[in-house]
Amino acid sequence: MSQKLNTPKGTRDFSSLEIKKRDYLLNTLKQCFKTFNFQEIQTPSFENLSTLTGKYGNEEDNLIFKILSSGDKIKKADTEAFKENKLTKFSNSLSDKALRYDLTVPLSRFVSQNLNNLSFPFKRFQTQLVWRAERPQRGRFREFLQCDVDIIGESNHLNEVECIKVYDTVFKRLGMPKVNLRINNRQILEGISQLMNLDSVNEIASILDKTDKIGVDGVINELKKKNISDTAIDQLNFFLDLKGSNREKINNLRAKFSSNKISTNGLDLLEKVINTSQKFNLKNIDISFDLSLARGLSYYTGTIIEVSSPDEFDIGSIGGGGRYDDLVQKNNPRLSGFGISFGFDRICLILDELNLFPSELDSSKSFMFLNFSLEKIDNLLVYIDKLRENNIICELYPTDTKIKKQMDYANQRGIDFVVIVGQEELNKNIFKLKDMSSGKESSFDLKNIVSELQNLS
Amino acid sequence: MSQKLNTPKGTRDFSSLEIKKRDYLLNTLKQCFKTFNFQEIQTPSFENLSTLTGKYGNEEDNLIFKILSSGDKIKKADTEAFKENKLTKFSNSLSDKALRYDLTVPLSRFVSQNLNNLSFPFKRFQTQLVWRAERPQRGRFREFLQCDVDIIGESNHLNEVECIKVYDTVFKRLGMPKVNLRINNRQILEGISQLMNLDSVNEIASILDKTDKIGVDGVINELKKKNISDTAIDQLNFFLDLKGSNREKINNLRAKFSSNKISTNGLDLLEKVINTSQKFNLKNIDISFDLSLARGLSYYTGTIIEVSSPDEFDIGSIGGGGRYDDLVQKNNPRLSGFGISFGFDRICLILDELNLFPSELDSSKSFMFLNFSLEKIDNLLVYIDKLRENNIICELYPTDTKIKKQMDYANQRGIDFVVIVGQEELNKNIFKLKDMSSGKESSFDLKNIVSELQNLS
Repeated sequence: MSQKLNTPKGTRDFSSLEIKKRDYLLNTLKQCFKTFNFQEIQTPSFENLSTLTGKYGNEEDNLIFKILSSGDKIKKADTEAFKENKLTKFSNSLSDKALRYDLTVPLSRFVSQNLNNLSFPFKRFQTQLVWRAERPQRGRFREFLQCDVDIIGESNHLNEVECIKVYDTVFKRLGMPKVNLRINNRQILEGISQLMNLDSVNEIASILDKTDKIGVDGVINELKKKNISDTAIDQLNFFLDLKGSNREKINNLRAKFSSNKISTNGLDLLEKVINTSQKFNLKNIDISFDLSLARGLSYYTGTIIEVSSPDEFDIGSIGGGGRYDDLVQKNNPRLSGFGISFGFDRICLILDELNLFPSELDSSKSFMFLNFSLEKIDNLLVYIDKLRENNIICELYPTDTKIKKQMDYANQRGIDFVVIVGQEELNKNIFKLKDMSSGKESSFDLKNIVSELQNLS
Repeated sequence: MSQKLNTPKGTRDFSSLEIKKRDYLLNTLKQCFKTFNFQEIQTPSFENLSTLTGKYGNEEDNLIFKILSSGDKIKKADTEAFKENKLTKFSNSLSDKALRYDLTVPLSRFVSQNLNNLSFPFKRFQTQLVWRAERPQRGRFREFLQCDVDIIGESNHLNEVECIKVYDTVFKRLGMPKVNLRINNRQILEGISQLMNLDSVNEIASILDKTDKIGVDGVINELKKKNISDTAIDQLNFFLDLKGSNREKINNLRAKFSSNKISTNGLDLLEKVINTSQKFNLKNIDISFDLSLARGLSYYTGTIIEVSSPDEFDIGSIGGGGRYDDLVQKNNPRLSGFGISFGFDRICLILDELNLFPSELDSSKSFMFLNFSLEKIDNLLVYIDKLRENNIICELYPTDTKIKKQMDYANQRGIDFVVIVGQEELNKNIFKLKDMSSGKESSFDLKNIVSELQNLS
């Protein structure tokens, strides 16, 4: 046992203090989701591999953590595929389960499986871990918490508005600075890709998504490398170059798309979402229509949105979501869904740096009984039991080691008061209390210990 | 998309109601751990494979879920091992990470990694999922929540006592019937295995553990199959046959072990733990010294305990733990640890069947606004926003479909009150409220909507 022990790449341990901060954020989110009357569900950490693959896109599928088959199932290893360097085929022969990559696909599995027991629109929230085999970087981990709300069963634009308002409410409650919510619609992008003579916008979605990192010129360069024709690129450039207010952009596009039903549909929806959202008294969100927003996941079919981190943070988006029409296994009536996700870890990072966590995350006081001798502690156990029955946080130092060592422990642990009941105190039926921050010592009747400590805690 | 969608074997989805119950139990546990001044930590869902293997025992190692290497790492597949049917070697070449099998080994990794930043004794609690590739059965799942408290850094018997008191406090708070806590000490078992001429008790631990299922005769049969000599079996039988109170058993063993230092050490410790625990005013626990308790995990070295489910439940243990001396990578001073685990899912099952969950798990009332037309809802959004700002749970039905359909949804979702603001109400500046349980309808001033609904919620 001498090797170096570490957490795996891209994963973290959390200390007690970090957990208190994370719990504060998590509870704020959950409390907000509940006032919007979303219901919580939880799904297993892993799903059947077939449930997950083919929904996100090829690049994303490669980032799914697969679970190695156990026992005799591993005998199914397709070594022929291995020899032929067909690695995906080989790894699929070794696995029939995989860790959750997001919360949307498990939700769609849940809804398909429980169609007859759910009432629609089904408004659910879910706050669970997801895992991605990505290269870790600031604010990006291989294991991270996602917090999602989704509304399934209706394609009405009010669902988009409701979710945008969830963002607004959460950010307001957290005291965050105003953030920018970019919005677009996949149908508009499909219209553009038709003008560009592409089969689908999915061909260029991942490149488009880089616009805010590499700029329009960067995007055009990457498209050229992909053998997209100059005419097509000129078409795209026209759209990416559109300036002005949301309204001006929408009007410009209406002219361009007058004969394209899909795109005008998309524009109508986009306009309704923006207009109705603004009537909802948004306090922490500016909405901007951004044609360069594509969102990589291939299951999106309608509205897509993404929330940028506040200007001073260079950690990408802190939330995003969209409408997906084909995830739930039911066609009549069609169950369309819209949902958003909060980037929990990145929001934590922002709250930390902007000092937005409450200063007293946990205000209960803690008490530690000194241990003078193992024979004498029998007298104390009943008091300790009573104190805990009254929810007073207390402990007994477990050995009768030197008092200095015990006090050092109390200091390091942040104990608020040390309780002293030695032989002398027992004889007098009293206890002493040492305030660890002021150093002050006081004596009290032992029989009043519960009420005295209750007053302090 | 027509295949059958399911959760993987041994895993479950949780509905909103189930989560409320589980949260109640989880919060009770956490609250109790906190009054004992344990600090929470969280560790990643997966660890490096080398951190996990070789700690639990060979059988258990086979139940660890390994994560398939992704990307090019899979090229390291040891196909030679596969050909030679060395399946463990083959699967180890395909994986360098694995899902948590318990919370103790990750804790020992955490402590080894953070030795210089922790104050000892380190009292931590942890409530996270663990995964085991076991055959699922009633109360046993492949993904389940474990709730652990451990004290690391001291081998003093007070740590055992403190953890036994944690069990007692939790079960008391939950209103559980009295349960039996069986206790033994690995050192005593080592003494017995010496008398049996075995190398270690680990050779027979998993068989011994079956005593409460298959009885002493069943155990003896299995030992015979393992080629344990008749003389050795007679030795063991003497111990398993011991009757009487804890004290009588201890005295009997003292005579038998008078010259065996390891075992008398174990007996001394066991006696101290039992005696001191009883001074701690145990309310929900009977302690019984049980020589047939071995606890399979090979990392245990001292005290071992296990809590049986109440008599009427046949779901095995609802908690267990023990002392482990060799898990933390530090030798001077030796960091011994003692910890216990709560079988969360089984306790849930018991609370459910004994009707011990509080009847009102969530008493907030919920309100739903009927949707009369998408044009008119603009008037309502500001009210809805205000209500939610005051933490009143409310939603607007997202489409202006038939009122009957909206009312059906409100019924199915368990909405407490439906809010009616149609054109007529808007004209009069009022809103109507329909109590969904009584059917009663009342009218109020629209401008008082927040205070009126606050009174009801």
